Amino acid sequence: MIIVLKPDTPQDRMEKIKKKMVSLGCETYEFQGENHKIIGLMGDTSKIDASIIQGNRSVEKVIYVQEPYKKANRLFHPENSIIQVGHKAIGGEEIALIAGPCSVENQEQVLSIAKQVKRAGGGFLRGGAFKPRTSPYSFQGMGEEGLELLKKARESTGLPIVSELMSPRWIEKFIEDVDIIQIGARNMQNFDLLKEVGRTRKPVLLKRGLAATLEEFLMSAEYILAEGNPNVILCERGIRTFEGYTRSTLDLSAVPILKKMSHLPVIVDPSHATGLWWLVEPMAKAAIAAGADGLIIEVHNDPANAKCDGQQSIKPERLTPLIDSLRAIAKIDNRRL
Amino acid sequence: MIIVLKPDTPQDRMEKIKKKMVSLGCETYEFQGENHKIIGLMGDTSKIDASIIQGNRSVEKVIYVQEPYKKANRLFHPENSIIQVGHKAIGGEEIALIAGPCSVENQEQVLSIAKQVKRAGGGFLRGGAFKPRTSPYSFQGMGEEGLELLKKARESTGLPIVSELMSPRWIEKFIEDVDIIQIGARNMQNFDLLKEVGRTRKPVLLKRGLAATLEEFLMSAEYILAEGNPNVILCERGIRTFEGYTRSTLDLSAVPILKKMSHLPVIVDPSHATGLWWLVEPMAKAAIAAGADGLIIEVHNDPANAKCDGQQSIKPERLTPLIDSLRAIAKIDNRRL
Amino acid sequence: MIIVLKPDTPQDRMEKIKKKMVSLGCETYEFQGENHKIIGLMGDTSKIDASIIQGNRSVEKVIYVQEPYKKANRLFHPENSIIQVGHKAIGGEEIALIAGPCSVENQEQVLSIAKQVKRAGGGFLRGGAFKPRTSPYSFQGMGEEGLELLKKARESTGLPIVSELMSPRWIEKFIEDVDIIQIGARNMQNFDLLKEVGRTRKPVLLKRGLAATLEEFLMSAEYILAEGNPNVILCERGIRTFEGYTRSTLDLSAVPILKKMSHLPVIVDPSHATGLWWLVEPMAKAAIAAGADGLIIEVHNDPANAKCDGQQSIKPERLTPLIDSLRAIAKIDNRRL
Amino acid sequence: MIIVLKPDTPQDRMEKIKKKMVSLGCETYEFQGENHKIIGLMGDTSKIDASIIQGNRSVEKVIYVQEPYKKANRLFHPENSIIQVGHKAIGGEEIALIAGPCSVENQEQVLSIAKQVKRAGGGFLRGGAFKPRTSPYSFQGMGEEGLELLKKARESTGLPIVSELMSPRWIEKFIEDVDIIQIGARNMQNFDLLKEVGRTRKPVLLKRGLAATLEEFLMSAEYILAEGNPNVILCERGIRTFEGYTRSTLDLSAVPILKKMSHLPVIVDPSHATGLWWLVEPMAKAAIAAGADGLIIEVHNDPANAKCDGQQSIKPERLTPLIDSLRAIAKIDNRRL
Repeated sequence: MIIVLKPDTPQDRMEKIKKKMVSLGCETYEFQGENHKIIGLMGDTSKIDASIIQGNRSVEKVIYVQEPYKKANRLFHPENSIIQVGHKAIGGEEIALIAGPCSVENQEQVLSIAKQVKRAGGGFLRGGAFKPRTSPYSFQGMGEEGLELLKKARESTGLPIVSELMSPRWIEKFIEDVDIIQIGARNMQNFDLLKEVGRTRKPVLLKRGLAATLEEFLMSAEYILAEGNPNVILCERGIRTFEGYTRSTLDLSAVPILKKMSHLPVIVDPSHATGLWWLVEPMAKAAIAAGADGLIIEVHNDPANAKCDGQQSIKPERLTPLIDSLRAIAKIDNRRL
Repeated sequence: MIIVLKPDTPQDRMEKIKKKMVSLGCETYEFQGENHKIIGLMGDTSKIDASIIQGNRSVEKVIYVQEPYKKANRLFHPENSIIQVGHKAIGGEEIALIAGPCSVENQEQVLSIAKQVKRAGGGFLRGGAFKPRTSPYSFQGMGEEGLELLKKARESTGLPIVSELMSPRWIEKFIEDVDIIQIGARNMQNFDLLKEVGRTRKPVLLKRGLAATLEEFLMSAEYILAEGNPNVILCERGIRTFEGYTRSTLDLSAVPILKKMSHLPVIVDPSHATGLWWLVEPMAKAAIAAGADGLIIEVHNDPANAKCDGQQSIKPERLTPLIDSLRAIAKIDNRRL
Repeated sequence: MIIVLKPDTPQDRMEKIKKKMVSLGCETYEFQGENHKIIGLMGDTSKIDASIIQGNRSVEKVIYVQEPYKKANRLFHPENSIIQVGHKAIGGEEIALIAGPCSVENQEQVLSIAKQVKRAGGGFLRGGAFKPRTSPYSFQGMGEEGLELLKKARESTGLPIVSELMSPRWIEKFIEDVDIIQIGARNMQNFDLLKEVGRTRKPVLLKRGLAATLEEFLMSAEYILAEGNPNVILCERGIRTFEGYTRSTLDLSAVPILKKMSHLPVIVDPSHATGLWWLVEPMAKAAIAAGADGLIIEVHNDPANAKCDGQQSIKPERLTPLIDSLRAIAKIDNRRL
Repeated sequence: MIIVLKPDTPQDRMEKIKKKMVSLGCETYEFQGENHKIIGLMGDTSKIDASIIQGNRSVEKVIYVQEPYKKANRLFHPENSIIQVGHKAIGGEEIALIAGPCSVENQEQVLSIAKQVKRAGGGFLRGGAFKPRTSPYSFQGMGEEGLELLKKARESTGLPIVSELMSPRWIEKFIEDVDIIQIGARNMQNFDLLKEVGRTRKPVLLKRGLAATLEEFLMSAEYILAEGNPNVILCERGIRTFEGYTRSTLDLSAVPILKKMSHLPVIVDPSHATGLWWLVEPMAKAAIAAGADGLIIEVHNDPANAKCDGQQSIKPERLTPLIDSLRAIAKIDNRRL
């Protein structure tokens, strides 16, 4: 951490700041830039909150050298984390393909889609039971009943299930029922919820918030890790930009960056990122080419009548040719699917 | 709502879509654009979820004519909503000034700041007891104890108190203890929490999310209103943009726009928006000039040693001259402070 | 085009607007939405400027149904445009690989890089002679002398050359000297320059502006096409977002979208988009997987001493393995490189 | 400037980097952070281009301490720059009000608007003769003829005139004809054009680009200053964000920030920023409350029939009450209008 002082800072003010930093466990180092006095800090600064220094009116700015996340940082954990989900794993050589409907609508729907996902070579079943919707008047999901239907689909196909948790109220049920707990983009900084899932040992699929920098994204993962749960899977799903053609802008550079910064697995959600079914296939292929550890894709047997997000769901029959292409791309990097 | 079909849509497909819209309670109207067939919908479309139509592969796009919010819409509620908070009101002629420390740190601090806020002419005391922090290693607030200290400050000054609720777990306590429940920017789409505060009749100060459009912001207010709580105060606090000099970009155009779209009061938070104490004064003045119904401002007696966000807190002694300026600006528009 | 009127618009005002639209060559169609009167327009609206209608105080909003670009629109030109550049072509089955230094520095440098590009299988040589730099104190390029060195490199390797034109002043020289004229991101809406290159028949590589929507990007292409030059190559090079880890955010969804909206070839510049050499390879692979028609990549033999942008240049020896991977990905979609 | 090296950088590599920096005229200072070696630079680093260091593969990142602009920097020029325009001045105690039509359409229009601007108390007349338009099919302005009409309006009212220069081709004519040369947002990084106007001594009104950070904006001003023209007026006119209700997001925090970073005058364009006439008044007032040195506002006598941008033009009769309000706000800060 580097503290830049205002040009006219008197020496005694500077000494006071240095003393404070020493009291926080750092050594300090001082030098004179062209116009500014500068204090460099040595020691573990990851737990020092810059905002307690910035309030000092002699401080011009505080610059991080060290990343503020620790447990998520590859620097201290050089090998890839591989997250075990039952007999499956995410983050290893094999690419994870998670597919299923945006929301669980009825038993027949979810079961038939699950079977087609399985047949096409998918590894996990996704399905929304509790749905975060922009409008209070939109379908809010089947709730508990939806989880029951997902469980039946798992029983019948053997596919582990992924579903989104929106409230601490349901945490016990999710721990019992699902294989991977999804935390949605809108809740990426719902810190209370992050702490809750951090106290379990369930795999957590954490989606990047629409306005989250990669550093903030990793800080949210750090919340879960810091509570003791090492099983975090990061998911890039698009950020909000001025471009309105797509629902959000899929930031595929995030994949190699997150894999460099962190040891956690990184998957991509081309369905929510783009919001358009015909972009799912090229973006899924691009994600694997960029090095993603997996994909989460919306599949619906009857998009025209889906209860939500039909426009971003591909039909199950497109899964097989898509997976063939993905497999061929994966092979080039010596990965399997 | 207007449905644009793909150029090559066969007539029977179009008829099917029209039938579906009729079954949802709309009348349909059809016309032929240069290249596209177009279906116009009449009737109350505010509760129709566009995503159930967009899944149809013949649909090119769906365009909203009507705003998707109803209870928050000024069209159906032309006069301003005035929110009663004890003996005070927000949204009327008088401008609301909410001030106080980012986080409650100890009794002396909060009490002394509260007295200074009162003396300078402030109307409400803000103070964080539960703090949403990007890093799990930063100070997370004093929790329940913080609420107790706020209550003592209220007792002593008579100022109603505003504090942020981060989890449904504490809702009972907040209903009992605080006068205005704040929902922070990061929880603007924590729909579960919105529904909870919607079930109370407490005034709710709802902050705009960093990536939220004004329409989405009003849809979040609609969640609260739809549950039966009419006491919603909107708060513009900056949106995330590429400009990194400020913490976020204060969108002051939002003030007149929200007041045109909705009947709810609109206040502005220049402290969090900019993240820099020396911008608080000019931006507070600009907010009132733009027509805001109030301000929420961070004040700290010792910013250099604040437990959080000292860099965006002004000192209490600056409140008096600031309020003088604000009062003069308010007067130009026939408002009081 | 659809015109939404304010709820209280009197009939005679509406008739006046309809008359105006008829005088502009449209038929009008009128219907009543729930709260708004709506006028639909039929006929060729692509040349009607929405802003001449929006000024009417009775108009709530104007909605485009039809895209405002005509010559760039795939609707009216269904087959791919293939741009001939000497004996090479861009936009066909073969993927174009353009590589070379950010700026031309001296003869030895550009010649040795050109040879390595050629040897590795690259098809075109890029090199900056006139450099747009944020700071007036940064190296501004070798100018005319740089073009001479590029020509010598072309002579020696046979590779067609691509270089950026920044001012109408140099257009004659560029027409004579280079094979593809590049218009940089910062000049995407330098309409005067667009008209100039539109009056030639030279292939133009048009980069997307940092703040340009895809529609605006195509409108800039339309400027060139409208002047009579059909040889436009679109280049996605990242958009500006809040994420600061990368120089800009590479928007790979733009590739399949642009190819759907338009018949023009689309290439990708992973070097400028990311600003980081170690992201060039994964993003280049992702771009081809997403369906790009080509890539433009910065290569430098001595990045540590490059006169600009060394941090985003890969070394020539990395080209061969990269091209091997790209070729394998291209093959999956039946394309060549 | 601070150079952060990768954790495993060998000592000899570090020495090499230090030597290079010394050869560029800096002293170096070295210290060891927790994981990274750090080199601090002393001396004038404003002319060192970070990109020539970042290309070194041992460099993790380069951090600016010193701002990269020099002549625009208030640090070296503490008092406000006051730009003389004939008998008027911009940047002093008096607030500049520039008003007029988006584009010059005919003599009667421009003359009648000019007179109303004058009568209401405006100080300068704006009018577009050469218009940058997104579409090649939109009205492109009257060109030279437009300049003639502006000159006649100046003759008749005495108001100095402001008009946009889009191409170096017309620079001689603009020097002769107009009082302030405007460089539009789309040309903020048209460096060739910046150098051209830098070589004159004409006042230049430089608009912020839609995707420009404040630092980049000042670097563009620096281009003009570096050529020898000190007469630069900065204009905030909105930045591009995800919010689509307004044409762009007016960033009023830019006003006090630019005035702190630089000595140049700062004005605001609420018309182009918002794109909506009914937002012009509240945003104009907010701009003055935030400390702006002036405003540039679009006024049209017949917005419904304006040849461009009628929806963002106010009618001349609204100028008088607006200026009254602005005057009252200005007075609070001891300024005149």
